[in-house]
Amino acid sequence: MSEPRTITVELGDRSYPIVIGRDLLGGNFDLGDYLAGSDCLIVSNETIAPLYIDALRASLAGKSVETLELPDGEAFKTLDTMSSVLDKLVAAGANRDTTLVALGGGVVGDITGFAAACYMRGVAFIQVPTTLLAQVDSSVGGKTGVNHALGKNLVGAFHQPRVVLIDTATLDTLPGRELSAGLAEIVKAGAIADAGFFEWLESNMPALVARDPEAIAHAVQRSCEIKAAVVAEDEREAGRRAILNFGHTFGHAIEHSQGYGEWLHGEAVAAGMVMAARLSGIEASAIERLSELLKSANLPVAPPRVGSQAMLDAMGMDKKVLDKKLRFVVLERLGHAVVTSDYDRSLLDEVLGATDE
Amino acid sequence: MSEPRTITVELGDRSYPIVIGRDLLGGNFDLGDYLAGSDCLIVSNETIAPLYIDALRASLAGKSVETLELPDGEAFKTLDTMSSVLDKLVAAGANRDTTLVALGGGVVGDITGFAAACYMRGVAFIQVPTTLLAQVDSSVGGKTGVNHALGKNLVGAFHQPRVVLIDTATLDTLPGRELSAGLAEIVKAGAIADAGFFEWLESNMPALVARDPEAIAHAVQRSCEIKAAVVAEDEREAGRRAILNFGHTFGHAIEHSQGYGEWLHGEAVAAGMVMAARLSGIEASAIERLSELLKSANLPVAPPRVGSQAMLDAMGMDKKVLDKKLRFVVLERLGHAVVTSDYDRSLLDEVLGATDE
Repeated sequence: MSEPRTITVELGDRSYPIVIGRDLLGGNFDLGDYLAGSDCLIVSNETIAPLYIDALRASLAGKSVETLELPDGEAFKTLDTMSSVLDKLVAAGANRDTTLVALGGGVVGDITGFAAACYMRGVAFIQVPTTLLAQVDSSVGGKTGVNHALGKNLVGAFHQPRVVLIDTATLDTLPGRELSAGLAEIVKAGAIADAGFFEWLESNMPALVARDPEAIAHAVQRSCEIKAAVVAEDEREAGRRAILNFGHTFGHAIEHSQGYGEWLHGEAVAAGMVMAARLSGIEASAIERLSELLKSANLPVAPPRVGSQAMLDAMGMDKKVLDKKLRFVVLERLGHAVVTSDYDRSLLDEVLGATDE
Repeated sequence: MSEPRTITVELGDRSYPIVIGRDLLGGNFDLGDYLAGSDCLIVSNETIAPLYIDALRASLAGKSVETLELPDGEAFKTLDTMSSVLDKLVAAGANRDTTLVALGGGVVGDITGFAAACYMRGVAFIQVPTTLLAQVDSSVGGKTGVNHALGKNLVGAFHQPRVVLIDTATLDTLPGRELSAGLAEIVKAGAIADAGFFEWLESNMPALVARDPEAIAHAVQRSCEIKAAVVAEDEREAGRRAILNFGHTFGHAIEHSQGYGEWLHGEAVAAGMVMAARLSGIEASAIERLSELLKSANLPVAPPRVGSQAMLDAMGMDKKVLDKKLRFVVLERLGHAVVTSDYDRSLLDEVLGATDE
């Protein structure tokens, strides 16, 4: 095990560390120190549990550990599944000092965090993300929740974890398509907030796709730092935090229109980022650089044939609609995003038009 | 309309006013000023809506108002019912600026507040409590939630309202048994924190039972002030807030054992307070005064024949169990409660023994 890197998400009395390293699971890192009491419930899914649950148990030596396996997939990110976590807690007689430990990707983390937010009006939780997307995105910032039949993430809570443990060795078993989906959020971090990191990604994307441990560790660290800085400034998304949604208004519309699960979240965000970059009205060469970087991560850069009306309908249901007025995250330049409702309507029509025919 | 009384619950940037008066509904008080945006959803139940929803609409003149009627009763205080509120919000295309307005008793308030806490990870809400219990208890402090099949209020959130509007005229239609249930929490407020108020209640209980408007207004105001002061000191119930649970450990066990709905919450708390007073080991004359005061409010002062083992089992699932160790709220004297796990075990056996045979 190499020396882990630690980032702190600064949120006053809700601050927490993100610990990043290879082979942290399996007893090299004592996660038990972070439990609220002596009991915990590991929530995972049927795909991830067989791979890593024993190693996670070893990191919780000496604690009372219960486990729960959820079905795998975004289709199960529902209030019903969340309720099954609550049932397990009640059945185990879990009290206010219990800790929920989420082992898996974003779906497991979001459901588990929401259950932790609601059980007895809030118990502790810990994230052990095993997908690249969850490591760089859903494990930072405290957004938890589930989908509604009519919209994504419409139900949830802000609930910060006590610690996020990122063992980059878990990426060894990640399917290539999911690795790429995570890379989309890493590219996003550079595009919205750090031109230097964006350039680093342009040089190092082949190493990331090849899962080079050092490159992966750096990319995860820098992405988490960028997100953590934005979240620290605006925990409840009253303003600037919305820049993290770059590519997501279009991306959610793509996911929604295709049925969740057809396009991975990161894939939809990749195509959505290129659409948002076009809407930004920045120079063509910058859009091209973004598009090329995403392609080199094996990501789609054009939307499916959803149709512009369906896209608009889907966006009308999006959380980023304030007072019925569409707001978009656009780029002023590569490395700097802003939120605006003062976008070029004809550019929007053009961007959406690409989804027609 | 007489001049309303206003109390402020001091919680920093989550502070909110409780406005108390007769005939506040119907346009005498502009509730629209308290909405987050221009849209709101009034959530009520099939019993209360026909009585007061038009008057509440008049208090929201000029705003866009949707309504939803839930089935009436504690049996419906479930995650499924909460989910039906979310469905209504989604169907109405409600955005982050929407406000939920709870019109009804504690069940409606708890469900609606929890839905507001979860919808888009938190939207505004307003309480318009129409039962005495809700006016003095559930409308102060931000506890929201629903029951689980295996335990009461096991699922929920802390979510503070923007304003609580208490129109004491709504008590005119309240069944006598529910009036008494509310009086139990008023007696509790005196017993745990204000000996002078307890004495006032001993003199004025006949006026309260007769629904004398001035007496009711004073009792509601003083009870809310007491609860607000305790909550301001300890919003998340890390310590002293637990004194508000005086009588509730036994009370919940009674409700749980009898099946929710058989005994009203306030009735169970009344009998539970007498049990907790006995456990306190205070002088017999003080227990007698508490018991007499509750009787004069037409409340039960002895538990049903639940059986001490069933009581203990039910208490084992209670939220007030910390690290598997029972903690009780006891009286040092009338007017001063403390939380302790250092109770007299033989007194506990005696108190529980009263539920045997």
